[in-house]
Amino acid sequence: MVRAAVIAVIGAGDAPPGVLELALETGREIAARGAVLVCGGRGGVMEAAARGARERGGHTIGILPGYDKRSANPYIEFAIATGMGEARNAIVVGSADAVIALAGEGGTLAEIGFALKLKRPVVALGAWNEIAGLHRADTAAAAVTLALKLAGKPN
Amino acid sequence: MVRAAVIAVIGAGDAPPGVLELALETGREIAARGAVLVCGGRGGVMEAAARGARERGGHTIGILPGYDKRSANPYIEFAIATGMGEARNAIVVGSADAVIALAGEGGTLAEIGFALKLKRPVVALGAWNEIAGLHRADTAAAAVTLALKLAGKPN
Amino acid sequence: MVRAAVIAVIGAGDAPPGVLELALETGREIAARGAVLVCGGRGGVMEAAARGARERGGHTIGILPGYDKRSANPYIEFAIATGMGEARNAIVVGSADAVIALAGEGGTLAEIGFALKLKRPVVALGAWNEIAGLHRADTAAAAVTLALKLAGKPN
Amino acid sequence: MVRAAVIAVIGAGDAPPGVLELALETGREIAARGAVLVCGGRGGVMEAAARGARERGGHTIGILPGYDKRSANPYIEFAIATGMGEARNAIVVGSADAVIALAGEGGTLAEIGFALKLKRPVVALGAWNEIAGLHRADTAAAAVTLALKLAGKPN
Repeated sequence: MVRAAVIAVIGAGDAPPGVLELALETGREIAARGAVLVCGGRGGVMEAAARGARERGGHTIGILPGYDKRSANPYIEFAIATGMGEARNAIVVGSADAVIALAGEGGTLAEIGFALKLKRPVVALGAWNEIAGLHRADTAAAAVTLALKLAGKPN
Repeated sequence: MVRAAVIAVIGAGDAPPGVLELALETGREIAARGAVLVCGGRGGVMEAAARGARERGGHTIGILPGYDKRSANPYIEFAIATGMGEARNAIVVGSADAVIALAGEGGTLAEIGFALKLKRPVVALGAWNEIAGLHRADTAAAAVTLALKLAGKPN
Repeated sequence: MVRAAVIAVIGAGDAPPGVLELALETGREIAARGAVLVCGGRGGVMEAAARGARERGGHTIGILPGYDKRSANPYIEFAIATGMGEARNAIVVGSADAVIALAGEGGTLAEIGFALKLKRPVVALGAWNEIAGLHRADTAAAAVTLALKLAGKPN
Repeated sequence: MVRAAVIAVIGAGDAPPGVLELALETGREIAARGAVLVCGGRGGVMEAAARGARERGGHTIGILPGYDKRSANPYIEFAIATGMGEARNAIVVGSADAVIALAGEGGTLAEIGFALKLKRPVVALGAWNEIAGLHRADTAAAAVTLALKLAGKPN
């Protein structure tokens, strides 16, 4: 089977409206290109991106910190209950072909670090200018286009 | 969103033909009932069950031990790259609403132990008579019917 | 540096007095032979074994399920805060040269499964007669002697 | 039991001589204050810090990515074999009362992110000026003094 490209969207669990809007748009673009969304499965950026992807009929995977699948946000189609706490961040980026990073805090920073370590390309969208080694995009559409290209699966 | 029931199929990575046939049939039944298959993503029982589910158009999730998604068997639709080694077994059963256990060795035994600990119901199919606390079935169809019932999602 | 032998003691978090007495004695024997005790760091068998080891001046390591080191029992000298939940069981046995298994439930069964998978020798002490592939001992002293021998570090 | 303070030292596995010298000195200071060193257990900064701690008679814990304890550097007294790959970074910082961060790359960045998420104080030593939310020190001795103070265990 040829698997669809998988794009991780990472960012704050508690984010301001502008960031949530960007996450929603990113999710929509991911689904519109036929890619699969993976995220941490909870609220904020994770929920907005998953909602956007589902609105366009895309598949969404949520990598949860706990063992209770009901803790997933309502836009997660496939809930993976890791029980690993914050270390589940390594699975979010490890399962992606490329990563789109929105504004966030320590958990998002950990995911960026893991992505660099695992050589998953990271596209920073409106944030993380202080971190070296990331790609940059100004809009959700441009971020998804770049992420798919970097993943070796442009479409 | 109402999520579909998720059934884990666990068993040996290197299994004899009779066990593989049973895994294939179990995968087919899971998909035929509209449930999602989750497994360890590699060979043997995992591959046979995923193949059966895909033949019937079902969704398949593979929880891989490493970070390389190409290590998934060809019937895995969504590959989760955990990098956790054998501890990924806890995620296989944690992500399931019920577990069907075929013949296996240490890794399968660890999954049964985790399932008991996490209170995921386990249906033993043609194996594990020595372990207390498991449910029993004699055919793939009966195992899937019982697993869905125990998961609280009969159909 | 030549590292000391490390012996895992596994068993129920909520155990009857006879099992706790056996765990205490096992911990004492481990320390008396100059070996290090590793366990899951919580109550029951884990606490009794750690108490026994500390009484004899041995080192004790507790592999905790959460991120709060204060959840360790008072006899843990080095608390490892994994945040991994039940999957931390794989680290308990992975970090040991040999494993001594007392009576327990699902979590202990998962540890036995992992030990078999990772080829760590397991000595069953007063329990687990139904599981194949384990070594057997009748007393704490005999279990520790056998575990050290199987670990390739008799003393 | 009153447990000793535990300080994590994080940084590149492949580091230039000046960074290694700083790591060595940091390890020595940690042990001189009676604290325990925890690190990732491998080479570079991890090995230099562990060597420094052992030279002063301190305890050293290495949180390894794999299941093979022989992969620990020779200055690790207690090797924890996680099998978790890069996600073991979460355990390094989770097990520490405070973290000292030397120059590094993606793996170190992930550890800093986790530390911020888990509210473990981080002292940056000669690196990471671009990351907000860290404490700063200019010498190994000052970093250890500050780390112990932030850990609530000055001495």
